[in-house]
Amino acid sequence: MLHFSNSLTRLVGELKKLPGVGEKSALRLAFHLLKHPDNIDALAESLTLVRERVRFCSVCFAITEEDPCWICSGERDASTLCVVEEPQDILAIEKSRAFRGRYHVMQGALSPLSGVTPAELRIAELMKRLEGGEVREVLIATNFSVEGEATALFLTKLIKPLSIRVTRLAHGIPIGSDLEYVDAATVQRAVEGRSEL
Amino acid sequence: MLHFSNSLTRLVGELKKLPGVGEKSALRLAFHLLKHPDNIDALAESLTLVRERVRFCSVCFAITEEDPCWICSGERDASTLCVVEEPQDILAIEKSRAFRGRYHVMQGALSPLSGVTPAELRIAELMKRLEGGEVREVLIATNFSVEGEATALFLTKLIKPLSIRVTRLAHGIPIGSDLEYVDAATVQRAVEGRSEL
Repeated sequence: MLHFSNSLTRLVGELKKLPGVGEKSALRLAFHLLKHPDNIDALAESLTLVRERVRFCSVCFAITEEDPCWICSGERDASTLCVVEEPQDILAIEKSRAFRGRYHVMQGALSPLSGVTPAELRIAELMKRLEGGEVREVLIATNFSVEGEATALFLTKLIKPLSIRVTRLAHGIPIGSDLEYVDAATVQRAVEGRSEL
Repeated sequence: MLHFSNSLTRLVGELKKLPGVGEKSALRLAFHLLKHPDNIDALAESLTLVRERVRFCSVCFAITEEDPCWICSGERDASTLCVVEEPQDILAIEKSRAFRGRYHVMQGALSPLSGVTPAELRIAELMKRLEGGEVREVLIATNFSVEGEATALFLTKLIKPLSIRVTRLAHGIPIGSDLEYVDAATVQRAVEGRSEL
């Protein structure tokens, strides 16, 4: 930032910490903000608000302003528990309107290479919830990445001995897909999981 | 954001106002920030600092914390004035170390279609500076876009009658380019502007 302004240099430094924002984008964002001073105020204020009000739900570890969150304190089916990696995964499942149970956010996925061991995840808290005896099915909705699959396998091995049903989201052809563009592994899973019409 | 948190929804709304940030990226940035609460504080603080301290230089309209800015108040050659569109353009020219004069930031370029007329730009302020009689050359470094070229032409017509030299950055082959990949118009300008070895 040369000698323009120390506070601008500092802002650019903070913006650069955001994912997908490099030096050039950070500069562009900073100069954009300078041209829209009202946006600076509103952004600073909303950051402070988030910092003050948003916390993790002490039951499911989703994001919430009231603890427990609206799902945990609501009338949702307590016998099915959907395990996700991150709070935003809940959004994806809620949008589908296909699940009426409760959630448990792992806050990550197992990744020994990046130093994420079971202790870093909310596994102990999950096992504690399952001890209650109310949950009869755990739907594992971790991502279909190496880390997500490893986490799913790890959880399955932990939960099965408790005589709780463990399920996983189905693989298959995405809605609206052209078959010719779908990868072979997905088609294979779709054939294996075919359903009666 | 469903029912997660109103303040998070608001933060996403503010992030979405940034250039190049859509709904998905805003969500991703917000969740990233939630995972790094220290960054939220630092970002909010740096925004507030920028808002409090950064202003436009009253002479050249660059960004500064002290008015006039370090270039206007410094020992720079006052007889050459480089006209740029935005403060960040000064950075590009300063990095080249080829210019030792002063600057004037237009804060935009003429664009009748977007409603940017001469009145929106710092043209009156530029003419006032030129009245002083100290400036003997104006180097126009607006962008080589339609708007930048139109602004350059407009300024040339205004400044020439004052018997001040008006110059423009040279067109030519960028350093390190493969000739075969350079567009024909650029090569044409490079031939026209060829220099003696």
